[in-house]
Amino acid sequence: MKLIPAEIIKKKRQGQEHSLEELRAWIDGFVSGQVPDYQMAAWLMAVYFQGMGKEEISFLTQVMRDSGRVLNFSHLGAFCVDKHSTGGVGDKTSLMLTPLVGLFGLKVPMIAGRGLGHTGGTLDKLESIPGFRTNLSLEEFQKQIETLGYAIIGQTAEICPADRKLYALRDVTGTVESLPLICGSIMSKKLAEGLNSLVLDVKFGSGAFMKSQEEAQSLAQLLKTTGERQGVKVTTLLTDTNQPLGRFIGNALEVKECLDILDGRTFTPSAPSKQVDFDYYQPTRELTLQLASHMLHLGGKADSPEVGYSMAQKALESGQAAQAFSALCQAQGGDLARFRGEEMSPRPFAEVRAPQAGRLESMDCEQVGWASLLLGAGRLSHTDKIIPCAGIEVNCRLGEVYQKGDPLFYLYGDSSSQKACGEVEARLLNSLAWDKDQ
Amino acid sequence: MKLIPAEIIKKKRQGQEHSLEELRAWIDGFVSGQVPDYQMAAWLMAVYFQGMGKEEISFLTQVMRDSGRVLNFSHLGAFCVDKHSTGGVGDKTSLMLTPLVGLFGLKVPMIAGRGLGHTGGTLDKLESIPGFRTNLSLEEFQKQIETLGYAIIGQTAEICPADRKLYALRDVTGTVESLPLICGSIMSKKLAEGLNSLVLDVKFGSGAFMKSQEEAQSLAQLLKTTGERQGVKVTTLLTDTNQPLGRFIGNALEVKECLDILDGRTFTPSAPSKQVDFDYYQPTRELTLQLASHMLHLGGKADSPEVGYSMAQKALESGQAAQAFSALCQAQGGDLARFRGEEMSPRPFAEVRAPQAGRLESMDCEQVGWASLLLGAGRLSHTDKIIPCAGIEVNCRLGEVYQKGDPLFYLYGDSSSQKACGEVEARLLNSLAWDKDQ
Repeated sequence: MKLIPAEIIKKKRQGQEHSLEELRAWIDGFVSGQVPDYQMAAWLMAVYFQGMGKEEISFLTQVMRDSGRVLNFSHLGAFCVDKHSTGGVGDKTSLMLTPLVGLFGLKVPMIAGRGLGHTGGTLDKLESIPGFRTNLSLEEFQKQIETLGYAIIGQTAEICPADRKLYALRDVTGTVESLPLICGSIMSKKLAEGLNSLVLDVKFGSGAFMKSQEEAQSLAQLLKTTGERQGVKVTTLLTDTNQPLGRFIGNALEVKECLDILDGRTFTPSAPSKQVDFDYYQPTRELTLQLASHMLHLGGKADSPEVGYSMAQKALESGQAAQAFSALCQAQGGDLARFRGEEMSPRPFAEVRAPQAGRLESMDCEQVGWASLLLGAGRLSHTDKIIPCAGIEVNCRLGEVYQKGDPLFYLYGDSSSQKACGEVEARLLNSLAWDKDQ
Repeated sequence: MKLIPAEIIKKKRQGQEHSLEELRAWIDGFVSGQVPDYQMAAWLMAVYFQGMGKEEISFLTQVMRDSGRVLNFSHLGAFCVDKHSTGGVGDKTSLMLTPLVGLFGLKVPMIAGRGLGHTGGTLDKLESIPGFRTNLSLEEFQKQIETLGYAIIGQTAEICPADRKLYALRDVTGTVESLPLICGSIMSKKLAEGLNSLVLDVKFGSGAFMKSQEEAQSLAQLLKTTGERQGVKVTTLLTDTNQPLGRFIGNALEVKECLDILDGRTFTPSAPSKQVDFDYYQPTRELTLQLASHMLHLGGKADSPEVGYSMAQKALESGQAAQAFSALCQAQGGDLARFRGEEMSPRPFAEVRAPQAGRLESMDCEQVGWASLLLGAGRLSHTDKIIPCAGIEVNCRLGEVYQKGDPLFYLYGDSSSQKACGEVEARLLNSLAWDKDQ
């Protein structure tokens, strides 16, 4: 079709829906440079205000997916499944989940991301394992899916160029926070993996991009509908991120937590006294099993999520999942033995103590994420380098009562992390709200 | 101030108001190239949806005005006044008004425009007078204001560069139809003329950009408030454009109508019979006198618009206005004698007749404007050349009863105009709605 950019912009400005042909001409024109940035920017802002219809979002996702290579594993005769999370704090489930599900014969071609905003990224975590290569070529990636059955890599230039170009423009034109655009960005990349089914972990709460459960529900519904319109089975979980997931935040620290869990260990601190019974690894283990249960069910390996849960639990307890994770590291060059030697007994350089007695009422979990970034666990600007050992050990839970001086957080990192200590401590303490009558 | 473009865009996206300093940094940054087109485009679309506050629009107008040279005639010790119209069909009042008001000692430094969309432009009309120069330098312009007291030129590169750059971007990003942006564009250029007062003719109806009286009223109020906040006295007139103004549409044809009126002539066609009493020049003469009356009143030459009206009427009837128009032409190189010799008795090449009997109920006056453009009276694209003699003579009025075969329009132009004859006739007939029971 003949593309008249000003007409496309006005149509969206007036709240009309685009056809598949229009969106294809529009997005392809943008990727090829025929539609200049300034016209796309005006259109993105019009989408921000007018939204898009369900069918239209599905069309957008489709043309974004088709802007680059779309993988296809159908010749392997196996079910392809993946998981995507909208981003949490301390969420390291992808690392265990991929091998855990893969060992049941499902193909898991995970294309993962870096840290975004205050959240951590799967690629950054894996790269704290010496030698781990997340930048496999698409050919290496496809070969590993054929042989091992699962792999985790970063986005390549060949996958969804439309998303990369659009995302860069949205970032500088105030058009990131738009449900249709978020949906198109997430789903186009996942659909390019050639999946049969997808489990979505949509986060809500103080540590999530979507603060309210309603917003998260809307996004979840939209992602599900969009995936299903493109022929992919989708299950969504809404999960609470009002406090970090598990014990550790930070790249090597999170890999350590994963290895501990895979090795069957728990983490029950001996002090403060009231918390003795709580296993800080339990929420991480539980979410991993929940996600795995749905992946196994969707992939046809379990008749119900409940059956899938038992299967995953047994694989974890038997040590099979640990072996599968070792196989993943070995396939992608990661030296797990060296990691175990260097990073499994980290020493904190500081601790943050309760300023008074009281019950911990709430936590601004996003601020805990930013504190972790300040220590070096993430990037504040594109050029920042990550400090693999930097991060936070969480020693407090919502609803618990603490005494003045109880250690709430332990800080990890190198000498440059220590320089941020004062700001990190202030930010962590400010993130907490107390009921002092307790 | 330090400019963070994404922050400015988000602020407007969220409906917040910008400060003067923010808008100055933003607009100056755009003119200098520091703010790229794609960020400005996103902001323009956010303005389209969120609007701007009254004070904010005044700030925008001010910084747009200040992006280039701002004229100042205060050293002349005389009142500076101008008129602006939002664009009609057949409206040639500026040509008579400028000399008519100037001869009373008011300074009239009119910076006028070309045809826009379906409407005609003052510059195009003046240029149908052989030799008339609308491209005086700002120095020549200022000198003519000092000596003769009035002048009409086109926008120069030195006046409001922000508006020129913004307008070009709005044109291709679907952000033309925004009241704050329309207001900023109109008023920044007028304020750059160094005016003390301004009369605004805001059109409504089928031939205007604002179709409803309510829209026109909103724009008029906004223009008035914005001018007054910048220290300029503003009077607004709302005028009906549901049919063309006067007898002729087209550049030389409209100059002819002006010369006829200045020479004291009327235009009362002898047929069809029912119209014998109607002077087709009367609406043009009346609007000119109305606008002049307010300009004379605002400029302190008349105690009331009514007194101003009588003064203007006398100047017209005495032939003084005709002399003042001759002086304007002479000052700017226009050969009026040659024009009178060649263009005062034009011959139509075709006529458009009533397809049936009936009362003329309504006219899509915008379509009459487009028909005139198709004959060559205006530009359909930037590269089109205008045919000075092309245009339409209007021989019908709303509310009148016509018989089948009565001539409603006469068409003028050269051989290339004649090629458009079929389309023009169809467009003109389609623009009319009839009550056939009459």
